[in-house]
Amino acid sequence: MDYYKNRTLTFNNVNIVEGYSVAGPKENDGRYKGFFDLALKDDMFGQNTFERAERKMFEHAIEGVIAKANLVDADINGIVGGDLLNQIVSMSFAARKHNVGFLGLYNACATFVESLIVGSTLVSCGYENVVCTAGSHFSTAERQYRYPLELGVLRSPVTQWTATGVGATIVSNNSEQIVPKVTRATVGHVVDYGIMDVNNMGAAMAPSACDTLVTFFKDTGTRPEDYDVIYTGDLGKLGSDILLDLTRQEGYDISAQQHDCGASLYWDEQQTYQGGSGAACSALVFNAVLLGRLRRGEYSKILLAGTGALMSPTTSFQGDSIPAITHLVEVCI
Amino acid sequence: MDYYKNRTLTFNNVNIVEGYSVAGPKENDGRYKGFFDLALKDDMFGQNTFERAERKMFEHAIEGVIAKANLVDADINGIVGGDLLNQIVSMSFAARKHNVGFLGLYNACATFVESLIVGSTLVSCGYENVVCTAGSHFSTAERQYRYPLELGVLRSPVTQWTATGVGATIVSNNSEQIVPKVTRATVGHVVDYGIMDVNNMGAAMAPSACDTLVTFFKDTGTRPEDYDVIYTGDLGKLGSDILLDLTRQEGYDISAQQHDCGASLYWDEQQTYQGGSGAACSALVFNAVLLGRLRRGEYSKILLAGTGALMSPTTSFQGDSIPAITHLVEVCI
Repeated sequence: MDYYKNRTLTFNNVNIVEGYSVAGPKENDGRYKGFFDLALKDDMFGQNTFERAERKMFEHAIEGVIAKANLVDADINGIVGGDLLNQIVSMSFAARKHNVGFLGLYNACATFVESLIVGSTLVSCGYENVVCTAGSHFSTAERQYRYPLELGVLRSPVTQWTATGVGATIVSNNSEQIVPKVTRATVGHVVDYGIMDVNNMGAAMAPSACDTLVTFFKDTGTRPEDYDVIYTGDLGKLGSDILLDLTRQEGYDISAQQHDCGASLYWDEQQTYQGGSGAACSALVFNAVLLGRLRRGEYSKILLAGTGALMSPTTSFQGDSIPAITHLVEVCI
Repeated sequence: MDYYKNRTLTFNNVNIVEGYSVAGPKENDGRYKGFFDLALKDDMFGQNTFERAERKMFEHAIEGVIAKANLVDADINGIVGGDLLNQIVSMSFAARKHNVGFLGLYNACATFVESLIVGSTLVSCGYENVVCTAGSHFSTAERQYRYPLELGVLRSPVTQWTATGVGATIVSNNSEQIVPKVTRATVGHVVDYGIMDVNNMGAAMAPSACDTLVTFFKDTGTRPEDYDVIYTGDLGKLGSDILLDLTRQEGYDISAQQHDCGASLYWDEQQTYQGGSGAACSALVFNAVLLGRLRRGEYSKILLAGTGALMSPTTSFQGDSIPAITHLVEVCI
C-alpha cells in the first residue's frame, strides 16, 4: 500500500462524558443482551413505517444521552451524525427536535466513527458538548438497498445482517471526572479493489481497514500490542479473516487484538451468516460495551476502526465496483 | 425565534488559498458566463450516464483546485464534501482518485458551506490543506427527486432549477500571501415550519436562513451593514422575499446586502422561474464570483449562508413536512 503521513489528528482534551444505545429485538437477543440502555420489543417501535421507527430510535438515543449526562439542550452545541437512508433522513428529522447546531454526515457504516472525529474537531475548536451519533435499521436498509422484505429472497452465505440500533456519545472539552478520551484519529481514504459483489461487503472493506490501521500505526509509531483491543466496525467473519491476512503482509499481526463489532453482535444460531453490518454495529458496541469496559478499567487503550462501503444501488446497476472507507479513533483512559 | 448563544465558532488561521469551479452549459449561459474555470459544452461530459458525468465534474473540480493552488496530492490532508445523490456517490467515487483522508457530508444544498465549516475545523486541528467541495447536476437530481426527464412534466411557477456544477475550495493553515479567511461560522439547526410542498423549497428554507443569520448577528454583535454582501444559497426569488420579511420582524434589515446564489445564477429568459437550486449554487457563486471579488478588494467582509432542505422522496411520500437547515460562514480579507 502507498503510505502518506498526513492523515492522523491529535486531540488534547476530548472527553467522552456519556454514551447511550437503543437496540432492536434481534440485537438484544445476541451476545450483548442486557447491555443496551433501551431494547425494543419490536422493530416498528410503535410507528406506522419502519423509516419512522428508525427516526424514533435516533430521537430516543439523542434525548437519552443528553439526559443520562445530566445535561439539557442548552448545554449542547452540536449534533453530528448520519444513517444509511437516502438523504440521511432519520438523522436529519430527529435533529429538528433540538435547537442545536447540526452537521449531517455520511460515510456508510463508518459514519459513527466519522461522527466521533467531527465531534472531536468541534470540541477542539471551542464547542463544549457535541452529540455524535449513527445508526441503522434492518427493515429500512433491506428494502432500500436490496429487495422488498415480502419477497423472501434467500440470502447468500457471504452476506451480513444489517443491525437495528442507534448509538449516541457526548464528547466534551469540559469534564470534572476522569473519563475515556478520544486522543488520536486517522481519517480514512477511499480504497477500491474492484470488488463487484454487493453481497460480499466484508471483502470490499477489508483492504480499506488494513490501509487505515497500518497508516495509524506508522503515523504514531505504535504497534497492535500497545492496545487492549482493536475493534473493526462491520467486516464480518470473512472480512475479518481477510483483514488479518492483509495486515500481516504489511508487517502487523493484529490477530490477538482484533474483534469485529458486527461479527460479535449475534450468536451463530441467529443465522446472520457473517454477522452484523450497518452503521449501528460500531455505534452499539462502542456505547453499550466498550465504553463501560474502559470506565471500569478493563481496557485502558483501544482502537475503534469504523468500516464503510460507499456504493449505492444506482452505482451497482451502472456497473461500478464498491469503494470502501475506514475511519479510526484511539480511545484511552 | 428561540435563541441559544452557543453555535458560532471562531477561527484564527483558516486561509482560503484557492477556488475552482466546473459549471454546466446552462449555468455558463447565465449571469456569470465566463467566470467558471471549466464550462461544459454538454452536461453528459463525455460519459454514458448523467451520474457518471456528475462524478467526473467532482473529479475535475478536485484535481483542478489542487493544481491551481500549485499543490499535489501529498500536500492535501483531507477532502470533505458531498452531493445530492443517494449515498453521496458522486463525491465518494471521485474521492477514491486521491490517497487523501475523506469525510462525506450531507446537508442537502447547504453542503458546500458545511464543507467549509468542517474543513475549517480540520485545519484548526492541524491539517495543513483541506479541499472543501459540493455540487449537483440537474439531470441526476431531476430523475432521483422528481420525475423521469422523458416524461416532460410541466413545472410549477414556484419551482427552481437544480444547477449543474461543482465548486471546490482549498482551506489552509499555511499561506504566505494575504488571502481571504474563514473567520467565523454558525452551524445551523434544523427548522421545520410544516411546509409540505416539495415544489416550494424557498418557503421551506427561508425560516431556517432567518434563524441562522439572526443567531450569527446576536452571537457576534454584528449588524447587516457590517458586511458588503450577504449571499444566501438557493432560496430563490420568492424565498428571498420571505427571508427579508422574517429578518425584518427580528429587527434586522438585510435588504441592502442580501443576494441569493441561486436567484442570481440565471437570466429571466432562461425560464428557471425562481432561479437555481442545488448544492452547486453556493459552490459555484462562491468559487467563481465571490472569491475573486474578495481578492480584488471589491469586498472585504461577506457572509455566505448555505440553505438546505432535508427531506427525501420517501419522507414526502410518507406525509412528512420539509425540515431545513442553514449554515453560515463569515469570510474576510
